[in-house]
Amino acid sequence: MKRDIEIAQEAAIEPIVEIAKRLNVSADDLELYGKYKAKLPLSLIDEDKVKKAKLILVSAISPTPAGEGKTTTSIGLAMAMNKIGKQTAVVLREPSLGPVFGIKGGATGGGYSQVIPMEDINLHFTGDFAAVEKAHNLLAALIDNNLQSKKHNLNLDPRTIAWKRVMDMNDRSLRDTVIGLGGTANGVPRETGFDITAASEVMAILCLSKNIADLKEKLGNIFVGFTFDGKPIYARDLNAHGAMAALLKDAIKPNLVQTLEGTPALIHGGPFANIAQGTNTLVATKMGMSLSDYVVTEAGFGFDLGGEKFLDIKAKYAGLSPVAVVLVATTRALKYHGGLSLKEVGSSNVEALKKGLENLEKHIENAKLFNITPVVAINKFTNDTPEDMAAIVEVCKRHGVMAYEANVWAEGGNGALELAKAVVEIAEACNTQFQPLYDWNESIENKISTISTRIYGADGVDYQPKAKSALKKIASLGLNHLPVCMAKTQKSLSDNPNMLGRPKNFTITVRDIEIAAGAGFVVPITGEMMRMPGLPEEPASNNIDIDSNGNISGLF
Amino acid sequence: MKRDIEIAQEAAIEPIVEIAKRLNVSADDLELYGKYKAKLPLSLIDEDKVKKAKLILVSAISPTPAGEGKTTTSIGLAMAMNKIGKQTAVVLREPSLGPVFGIKGGATGGGYSQVIPMEDINLHFTGDFAAVEKAHNLLAALIDNNLQSKKHNLNLDPRTIAWKRVMDMNDRSLRDTVIGLGGTANGVPRETGFDITAASEVMAILCLSKNIADLKEKLGNIFVGFTFDGKPIYARDLNAHGAMAALLKDAIKPNLVQTLEGTPALIHGGPFANIAQGTNTLVATKMGMSLSDYVVTEAGFGFDLGGEKFLDIKAKYAGLSPVAVVLVATTRALKYHGGLSLKEVGSSNVEALKKGLENLEKHIENAKLFNITPVVAINKFTNDTPEDMAAIVEVCKRHGVMAYEANVWAEGGNGALELAKAVVEIAEACNTQFQPLYDWNESIENKISTISTRIYGADGVDYQPKAKSALKKIASLGLNHLPVCMAKTQKSLSDNPNMLGRPKNFTITVRDIEIAAGAGFVVPITGEMMRMPGLPEEPASNNIDIDSNGNISGLF
Repeated sequence: MKRDIEIAQEAAIEPIVEIAKRLNVSADDLELYGKYKAKLPLSLIDEDKVKKAKLILVSAISPTPAGEGKTTTSIGLAMAMNKIGKQTAVVLREPSLGPVFGIKGGATGGGYSQVIPMEDINLHFTGDFAAVEKAHNLLAALIDNNLQSKKHNLNLDPRTIAWKRVMDMNDRSLRDTVIGLGGTANGVPRETGFDITAASEVMAILCLSKNIADLKEKLGNIFVGFTFDGKPIYARDLNAHGAMAALLKDAIKPNLVQTLEGTPALIHGGPFANIAQGTNTLVATKMGMSLSDYVVTEAGFGFDLGGEKFLDIKAKYAGLSPVAVVLVATTRALKYHGGLSLKEVGSSNVEALKKGLENLEKHIENAKLFNITPVVAINKFTNDTPEDMAAIVEVCKRHGVMAYEANVWAEGGNGALELAKAVVEIAEACNTQFQPLYDWNESIENKISTISTRIYGADGVDYQPKAKSALKKIASLGLNHLPVCMAKTQKSLSDNPNMLGRPKNFTITVRDIEIAAGAGFVVPITGEMMRMPGLPEEPASNNIDIDSNGNISGLF
Repeated sequence: MKRDIEIAQEAAIEPIVEIAKRLNVSADDLELYGKYKAKLPLSLIDEDKVKKAKLILVSAISPTPAGEGKTTTSIGLAMAMNKIGKQTAVVLREPSLGPVFGIKGGATGGGYSQVIPMEDINLHFTGDFAAVEKAHNLLAALIDNNLQSKKHNLNLDPRTIAWKRVMDMNDRSLRDTVIGLGGTANGVPRETGFDITAASEVMAILCLSKNIADLKEKLGNIFVGFTFDGKPIYARDLNAHGAMAALLKDAIKPNLVQTLEGTPALIHGGPFANIAQGTNTLVATKMGMSLSDYVVTEAGFGFDLGGEKFLDIKAKYAGLSPVAVVLVATTRALKYHGGLSLKEVGSSNVEALKKGLENLEKHIENAKLFNITPVVAINKFTNDTPEDMAAIVEVCKRHGVMAYEANVWAEGGNGALELAKAVVEIAEACNTQFQPLYDWNESIENKISTISTRIYGADGVDYQPKAKSALKKIASLGLNHLPVCMAKTQKSLSDNPNMLGRPKNFTITVRDIEIAAGAGFVVPITGEMMRMPGLPEEPASNNIDIDSNGNISGLF
């Protein structure tokens, strides 16, 4: 069996100017990054075309270690839609560099449903993550510089500083640090730490900004901390936002690459899906919709996180109205939700699968809460049986939902033609009138409660003392109108990662609520959120290599 | 008077494919980064052409706060040489991002002698610094990961780890840190810190590597620390070098941009000039020489640091033989060396200037030690007087050296036509047979002594206890054959920054000797070396901004 990187390197890659032509973008409008990557100027966004284009959101059941393959399915679906004559672009997040050297080895789809050039996309790409990192860390340097400033000291209380530093690296030993040691010339000693760059609020901001002016305003709104006399300090008070935005001058432009079948792929931005919105930039989505009749996009983790946030936060900020939702599952993952161990999910077990389907059912119900009829895509593994598929189809039918096999890993676009037809049918019927789950003007507690009870299926919400005082802080800062971006484990519909399937009789515990005033949401924290992964005992970097001719190996 | 950024933004910039044509490089060979930047594949390096091309090294007197303008002069000289009919490229270091937000605001020349697009070159450019940073920090993450590894623990003694982390930011509070706090899941607590990325040994390595294979070998040779039982650990023991080299796959390719007059400019690599070699990549120099009859290049700080290291380290590693050295000075800087304060150097004072000329004289003598006849370039300021120039010419004549005004800031290439003619004359006479100052096979002490007494004018060398034990360590690691890359203040020919002019009756004190086994040199430390600058009270970032159309302001 060929490895992903082998398939990718053997592919007949087309010059990116040829891919751009398919979007009616002239070579003159491209900012090339080599022959196979390009940035697109924001001026190509056309709001009229955005209104006419049809947006398909790919989401999934609650993720399991067995894997679902949302990105691979998104890529395969977009290729299939082109095959059935619908001009379609796929719009995705870009991979974070850190995990490439940890376990993952890459994040550009798999098998015959990949975006290429995969080495470039996985390693630095067009520098967007590096730019986000620099903008983030410039603010951090300005904060610490101000702490020891004589003439312009803002009287910031170091103990209240909410802004850490970021690095796109799996580096657990940077999670908790003390900086500013070594005497008066070296700053003010204080506790802080590093998150991975994908977890930066600057990344969340970049991904929700409509244009440069909006970006700059949002950067200025970043909440930094309080003065010793209780006054809030924002990034704009440090004059940081102009220089930060200057650092992002190219990062805000969407990146164009291609799939293995030459489908245009916009790969842009990569915020975390647990503490942030987990989906590509707003401008990339709009760019795709400006240049294509259809856009297939994806949001991180299950529909309870990525889907809900996409629809309640991004769609509202962007003025977008998705016309279809695809829920991805695998028989393996469904069996895992049905109680099997990782070792057992490879064997046939229709009973376990049927039990695990309750997780899919809840996500189907959730999609309908937004008045969108989902389509279910079963990302095919070689030993899936017809009985498995029949069981899935039957349960879906009970909810009035269609389910299709998507054999995109092995067959590319050809493996998802039926799925593509079903998606197009729903999109063109246009009988769905998307509606968000909650009104932003409700109280923060109401918004959290609505999501927790209706989407997660919780009985209610408990607030720990820190969360209660955060609610007061949010109110005092005048931020009650912001949407909530839940920080919850992706592994369960509940806030307990061990409750698989469709958890019942549980409450959601909010431990704290963080403020992302720049990105424009607050983040209720319902558990330990990993913001800086570590490297495993045997890091993927062990196998990553480059030969004398510059050929990369070991990425997958 | 126009600001540099205004001049740069008003310039009629040519598409980089046009600039490449002047080097007989076809558009197909370019890896474009937008319309005005490109990377050149290493396959364009042609060793036969390198042998025929003529390399001009621009260096300077000991730097002062009054400024010398080495980069500006290099750019102006290259433009002038094209004007007098010599096909010439200028090859320079790329600016570090951190200082852009501190005091400098940019580092791409000045006035009518700049490289463009200056915003891009100063902000991220083609991502080389970011790639170096990632490669460096990957090794750091692998080191800390190994400290708590169960199956593959190398038994590394954390107290011996010589590898810090880097960030391209002026951030003094990262100089001294404690990491790994927060419990067993977060690594092993230990003291460490961050240098700025330009100070990374990975940067030094990138700049001395001949090709990818050489790069990988050098990365593997990085010395990390000792095991608890005294065994040395190198990056290759952590399997780090393959992945690090993969991260540098594009960074090793030289970048092509242009000067304000359309002269091809290769801007590539940016190692520190105090603790490292302070000059652009070896491959960029060779690329320039493969594509141009003449190459003007530059090395950081005064000739005692940049010049000596270029000739004794880089030229030897690369097999290059520079045919001329240009020593840049200003009347202001000479007066500063003559004892005037910064406030006084603007007024006429021939006596002070004459006194300061002793600094220039020593650098002239030093250039001759390498059997190269230097040319002196006086980077003109508006209120320089004919008497100033006459005094300089007279002193130079005594040494058999020509001196010329270079009015490149105000006039571009036209301001350096006489200088260009003189440089070409020396280069074409070819009566210089460059010879290095010392033999690498001498002992480390002899090499240090030769540089200290002959170049700096010291009476001798003192070794502090740490340096003495470092000598033993170097011997035990079998690294005595490496050249020495002196870490000395740039402000004085001595190791005391306050001794201006031509210091006498002093000894050089070596406090420690660091090992850069990857880069291929050892670094005798003769004073406090700044490896992580801080931001000033009023950072340049205050004024850096971007408008809604993406136009940057405030970079100068």
